[in-house]
Amino acid sequence: MAISHALPLQPIDVQPLGDRLPSEKSVALFKSEDLEVMRMVLLAGKSLPVHQVPGEVTIHCIEGRLDVTAEGASHVLAAGQLLFLPGDLPHGVIALADCSALVTIVLRK
Amino acid sequence: MAISHALPLQPIDVQPLGDRLPSEKSVALFKSEDLEVMRMVLLAGKSLPVHQVPGEVTIHCIEGRLDVTAEGASHVLAAGQLLFLPGDLPHGVIALADCSALVTIVLRK
Repeated sequence: MAISHALPLQPIDVQPLGDRLPSEKSVALFKSEDLEVMRMVLLAGKSLPVHQVPGEVTIHCIEGRLDVTAEGASHVLAAGQLLFLPGDLPHGVIALADCSALVTIVLRK
Repeated sequence: MAISHALPLQPIDVQPLGDRLPSEKSVALFKSEDLEVMRMVLLAGKSLPVHQVPGEVTIHCIEGRLDVTAEGASHVLAAGQLLFLPGDLPHGVIALADCSALVTIVLRK
């Protein structure tokens, strides 16, 4: 994913993609000094392998349904739900339905 | 606003409040080591005076419409739009319609 420069004060659309979702890809929305924000697009049945990042993360499900597995348990997020992950926590993601989610990562220097 | 402890891995509802909006108040969703996340509720015509915080901020309009004024210009956010604000940037907020927004603040030590 190419990372856009931060665009302060410029509204960024993060509406549900709806019918367009199946043809969309994950996209970096911006990267600033302290934050990286992306929209993750994951089709039903697809997954991200277990990974971790140094900084804290929020995952905000915009549409569809996804499962975040961490600490041996499954955490299902429906559209309009948000999950907080501490830094350095290994987690995997599985799309239970076609979904997109706003992922906000605190950059740790 | 009382600040809840961070609740890692616990889904938090941030759906539109809809008809309930007029009777809801702004609420802190969680505060972690690096992040403070709240849902701001602002009724049409109400405003937050110009203020600033040390850390970077994202404002994600969940429903309604609001105006963020900064650097002498007005930046209108509709539902499903997100704005990035650098740290220490003075900004004011006016609700153009009854609105709620997810506000994510990076905590600067």
